[in-house]
Amino acid sequence: MVPRRPSISDVAALAGVSLGTVSNVLNRPHVVAASTRSKVEAAISSLGFVRNETARQLSSGHNRAIGLVVLDIGNPFFTDVARGAQEVAQDRGAVVLMADSRADERTERANVELFTQQRVQGVLIAPSGGDTAWVADLRRAGTPFVVIDRVVSGVGEHCAVSVDDRTGGELAVAHLLQLGHRRIAFVGGPSTLAQVADRRVGAEAAVEREAGASLLALSTGALTVDEGRRAADTLAALGDGERPTAVFAANDLVALGVLQGCVRHGLRVPADLAIVGYDDIDFAAAAAVPLSSVRQPRQELGRTGTELLLAEIAAQRDGVEHVHRTERFTPELVARASTVGH
Amino acid sequence: MVPRRPSISDVAALAGVSLGTVSNVLNRPHVVAASTRSKVEAAISSLGFVRNETARQLSSGHNRAIGLVVLDIGNPFFTDVARGAQEVAQDRGAVVLMADSRADERTERANVELFTQQRVQGVLIAPSGGDTAWVADLRRAGTPFVVIDRVVSGVGEHCAVSVDDRTGGELAVAHLLQLGHRRIAFVGGPSTLAQVADRRVGAEAAVEREAGASLLALSTGALTVDEGRRAADTLAALGDGERPTAVFAANDLVALGVLQGCVRHGLRVPADLAIVGYDDIDFAAAAAVPLSSVRQPRQELGRTGTELLLAEIAAQRDGVEHVHRTERFTPELVARASTVGH
Repeated sequence: MVPRRPSISDVAALAGVSLGTVSNVLNRPHVVAASTRSKVEAAISSLGFVRNETARQLSSGHNRAIGLVVLDIGNPFFTDVARGAQEVAQDRGAVVLMADSRADERTERANVELFTQQRVQGVLIAPSGGDTAWVADLRRAGTPFVVIDRVVSGVGEHCAVSVDDRTGGELAVAHLLQLGHRRIAFVGGPSTLAQVADRRVGAEAAVEREAGASLLALSTGALTVDEGRRAADTLAALGDGERPTAVFAANDLVALGVLQGCVRHGLRVPADLAIVGYDDIDFAAAAAVPLSSVRQPRQELGRTGTELLLAEIAAQRDGVEHVHRTERFTPELVARASTVGH
Repeated sequence: MVPRRPSISDVAALAGVSLGTVSNVLNRPHVVAASTRSKVEAAISSLGFVRNETARQLSSGHNRAIGLVVLDIGNPFFTDVARGAQEVAQDRGAVVLMADSRADERTERANVELFTQQRVQGVLIAPSGGDTAWVADLRRAGTPFVVIDRVVSGVGEHCAVSVDDRTGGELAVAHLLQLGHRRIAFVGGPSTLAQVADRRVGAEAAVEREAGASLLALSTGALTVDEGRRAADTLAALGDGERPTAVFAANDLVALGVLQGCVRHGLRVPADLAIVGYDDIDFAAAAAVPLSSVRQPRQELGRTGTELLLAEIAAQRDGVEHVHRTERFTPELVARASTVGH
């Protein structure tokens, strides 16, 4: 026999306080004096009172939140991924909560920790770099997770949605080589970002297949418009015979920054410097010189990632086996005026 | 005397299950068979076991999350507000969780409800429209909140950070009038958005002061690039003598859409149609024709909103009086090629 569940009134009576005070201890304990709080906590303990929220979660089995940890909320790539995730979540009565890691591993881990404390149903994460301690945190909490835009190695099986970034890098540079460029710069960083490393490896593979072609790597501290502008300063300072004739930027924000820097330094795009970006964010087509870019299926990544996550959550709930899957999408090159002119 | 707090081992022993099973009931109850869960719940009740998380929140007084409810995460205006909020939150050891309302009042209320269930410290909210039922939800939960980019009327006092949108609308249209434009279109919507209504009122005030000037209002279903493109189709279909010579768009996404539409229809900007946007997002300056815009202090809004929220949270915690404040910023016009040419 399950004993009668003690009510909030029982707690109030035992502690000798009002119902409102017990409610405050449960919902906003910081407004209650420490001595009163101790009395109420003692009553809660001795009666075995389980607060409603926990009771509700125990009976419903889960809450409605899915956590989404992104690398940079200021990058439209991630807001598009979020849009895709929201679409699927909303169809299933779930709500997506987003946290921004600002490309910082400590912030990323704090975000994951907070989501596990909040007992979200599951976490979608676009990881920032090499430190994968957050995987252990999620496994310990038993929280299902799906990795976006990357497969994390050495942490056991997990579901992932990714785009073949190596092929994307090859597509970008093959396009520039085909247009006759032989001195090409790769602009992006930090190289600890898997996306950056993979796109560069693809770029190098394309260059290596072409006799007489070379790739100059300009490393940036982050994938931002500002860092792109700074790279353009560096390129503009080079002599005309020395300067690469084309840039492959690791994402569109960097590419837009390079473009802005070229305008400032009087370099014509694409006559003096051709530019290819990556992601094909909506703003790429609307740029001063419409930007050639490697298109990723952004919303599709978010949608598919959420489908995989909800499948894993359902399998866990129903106690059936779940087989981890990786969905890998192939990117495509979109050529615009920044490489092929008007 | 406070009785010894029962441990998870006590619960396991009484229920006759393993520690792991109790942990599962607490952390992911959906993986536990209903009959086992009942046994464990009964043991939790009769022993008065309080789960660690609740115990920790009871003793620390609060968790570390602040909720941020935005109107449209795809609008860089809001990601900049989020950046400002994150800066301040991080300094104080708090984490910002974001939820996107997609300009939908039901989604907005679901987001607020989820945040109160998650017991966040407080909520920053950029509300979507007329339905302010979420205010009552937050008040009932005792969750402090600060309203961004708006003051909500008829719901009692609250803290707010806003920009004087009426002045912003006046600035935009006064700029166009000064350049000689007399037939001006206002493009934006829905008009239930306070931002849209206020910017339009300011625009009308400026037009009314100028003899012979008129304002044509083109209402859009949302403040998006797509809706801007559609408005450009409508404008392009008008005869040359009939078509407005200038557009004031309610935000930069709409303005960028109008600009893209003009390029497609062969309308020159600003010769055939001058365009002023609103927000001065980073992408405005990098547009095909750099966009004139009304600049809002976006990160500052997020920073100040978070300061006000943390002050209210601290006052509540310390049991001292809190006086609600409204911080109102003044916008400024940034003139670029989309109105003044090259």
